[in-house]
Amino acid sequence: MDINEIVEKIKFNQDKLVSVIAQDYKTNEVLMLAYMNVEAFTKTIQTGVATYWSRSRQKLWVKGESSGNTQKFKSFSLDCDGDAILMKVLQKGDNGRSDHGAACHEGYRSCFFRELNNGHWQVEAERMFDPKEVY
Amino acid sequence: MDINEIVEKIKFNQDKLVSVIAQDYKTNEVLMLAYMNVEAFTKTIQTGVATYWSRSRQKLWVKGESSGNTQKFKSFSLDCDGDAILMKVLQKGDNGRSDHGAACHEGYRSCFFRELNNGHWQVEAERMFDPKEVY
Repeated sequence: MDINEIVEKIKFNQDKLVSVIAQDYKTNEVLMLAYMNVEAFTKTIQTGVATYWSRSRQKLWVKGESSGNTQKFKSFSLDCDGDAILMKVLQKGDNGRSDHGAACHEGYRSCFFRELNNGHWQVEAERMFDPKEVY
Repeated sequence: MDINEIVEKIKFNQDKLVSVIAQDYKTNEVLMLAYMNVEAFTKTIQTGVATYWSRSRQKLWVKGESSGNTQKFKSFSLDCDGDAILMKVLQKGDNGRSDHGAACHEGYRSCFFRELNNGHWQVEAERMFDPKEVY
């Protein structure tokens, strides 16, 4: 596999990042939106574990490295413009013991746990873990 | 509904935009990733039709205004960081006559029609329309 040939089709932005949507490979639930640089993208393929670039910490971020709730890489799809990637994953939970875990560091299955209802953003999901007990 | 109260929970980036993932409200297929500013977000709620900010054309963009393949707005969810939105939609097709249409201007159901297989980005979907006949 020629990683350069794969990567050259991706249009990274001025910060050398590409948007990556993580989606459950079975249910199609959208779990989160994060970013990858070339190194994170390459490591995700090589290790089979979703690896992002943390914009807040400015470093490579193996998702779940603290909580154990890693994401097993399943597939990458590239959009028509080449500037967004859809990644299917298996979201581990319960410190890696479960195959149906929480993607969000706030303990929810998906980071998109607040829905606009009657003019307010309301939490529309149940917590799968208590962040205070995990981090 | 107080639109200011809703919008102040959204963290727009330095270009005053927020990333929006459009997802089919029934099948959970991810259709596209695009951007909204406050005006696009507000118009989407007010009109019930997905309206984005076109970064290439630098103007409001009612998705499907040329092709007729509009997106009926169903719901908004905000992520934990407040800087990404998941929007569920009904994707119209066949110039608005069908309720199962193509989101991509290249004629595919989803913009994410190229999948990484055996080291190559390969088209893994069938065209629903021929762009030459539509645009």
